[in-house]
Amino acid sequence: MNAENYPDVIRLLQNHRSVRKFINKEIAESDLEHIIRSAQAASSSSHGQSYSIIRVTDPKKRSKLSVYAGNQTHVKTCAEFLVFCADLYRLEQISLLSGVDMAESLDTTEMFLISTIDAALAAQNTAVSAEALGFGIVYTGGLRNYPYEVTQLLNLPRRVYPVFGMCIGYPEEIPEKKPRLPLKAFYFENEYKRIEDTSLHIRKYDEVMKQYYLNRTEGSRSETWTETQTMKRKSSRRLFMKSFLKEQGFLLR
Amino acid sequence: MNAENYPDVIRLLQNHRSVRKFINKEIAESDLEHIIRSAQAASSSSHGQSYSIIRVTDPKKRSKLSVYAGNQTHVKTCAEFLVFCADLYRLEQISLLSGVDMAESLDTTEMFLISTIDAALAAQNTAVSAEALGFGIVYTGGLRNYPYEVTQLLNLPRRVYPVFGMCIGYPEEIPEKKPRLPLKAFYFENEYKRIEDTSLHIRKYDEVMKQYYLNRTEGSRSETWTETQTMKRKSSRRLFMKSFLKEQGFLLR
Repeated sequence: MNAENYPDVIRLLQNHRSVRKFINKEIAESDLEHIIRSAQAASSSSHGQSYSIIRVTDPKKRSKLSVYAGNQTHVKTCAEFLVFCADLYRLEQISLLSGVDMAESLDTTEMFLISTIDAALAAQNTAVSAEALGFGIVYTGGLRNYPYEVTQLLNLPRRVYPVFGMCIGYPEEIPEKKPRLPLKAFYFENEYKRIEDTSLHIRKYDEVMKQYYLNRTEGSRSETWTETQTMKRKSSRRLFMKSFLKEQGFLLR
Repeated sequence: MNAENYPDVIRLLQNHRSVRKFINKEIAESDLEHIIRSAQAASSSSHGQSYSIIRVTDPKKRSKLSVYAGNQTHVKTCAEFLVFCADLYRLEQISLLSGVDMAESLDTTEMFLISTIDAALAAQNTAVSAEALGFGIVYTGGLRNYPYEVTQLLNLPRRVYPVFGMCIGYPEEIPEKKPRLPLKAFYFENEYKRIEDTSLHIRKYDEVMKQYYLNRTEGSRSETWTETQTMKRKSSRRLFMKSFLKEQGFLLR
């Protein structure tokens, strides 16, 4: 499907790719401010804006975060590194100042969901606005390897947790676009389609991804999507997340 | 801060407002397809694409969803209603077809987070691309009032849950832009700022929001942000979410 006659925004969105190599060049403060203002224009549940963003400029903190993320060098080398946090602390504090104790409500799984989603929507606007200004971005879920350490490093209070980070910078290298699932494998009408109806489309996609890796690695990597995903997901990871989140005051009810 | 000299995308993002009144006019299929293709171009954790989108066209299902969402008429009247689902069923099924049992891994809080965030990032790209094409959108978190019923209505299997819905359509009425928190209240450098450092900025924002409601309601509503939020959040809501999610195969570890 050709996006040629569609607005620039559609092309911009459909051309997204994650950038992990950055030129050593600063981002103008005014650009960054526009990115943050675009981030916060995203919807939030009941206008609660239950998230915060930490801009990490301290090189020592950057180094530590890059190690926590699994030695991802670009966490150090990117122009800007932002940590998106789900934040119920702000709501708790303003209510306490009004003499209201909302602890029981903030303890709920529902409020955990709300704050996590609020952070994610703001982050995706960050990604889109950064790309609109010509920057490259990559999400850094790897921060969840060491949630306790990240929380301490950024001095996050109870009721705040780091959902993920994001690297932003001038791209040195723009990788090839990664093919996505065929529509028929994830986009349904009126009811969910079981694997019997989708496996054929996933099989085709498996071949597309295999070809993509073959091309990208000049033949050294050859894997279907099913193989990659099964390999990546078969062992349980980050089993500490549940206790970490509870200790931070989330998911208690 | 003026976005005048910035690309259209920045202005588009910063001009977002939720639309709840729609003209009775269909969206072209090609537009909708571009919106979905923009949605799926968003990043996903390890390229897992752990979400699905259900387009609800059946008027009976729309009516039910509108009731579940708390009698939100626009769920019925909008041109398109999409339900964004966190989806670990697809990964489970493809691994089973390869003879691998990933149940223990998919049970984790980490995989719950991943699938929820994947769904949210795709949804925000949906919102942005729909607005780029001139449509209005509003998120419908209200679906979580009746998660069991929504799950049954859309025939969602275990390992899939409805995160939220989204209404898309030609706007009949575009509301005034809602002011957001001042940067100093949610955007920090190197470490989180406690309430002692942010309360002044939140107080100022309280007055901004009070004025916004006064203007919008011609004087009949006068509330600070703190008052709105405290009122909305002080009672625990959707206490069934934790058991619902566990029954759907999430958050088990």
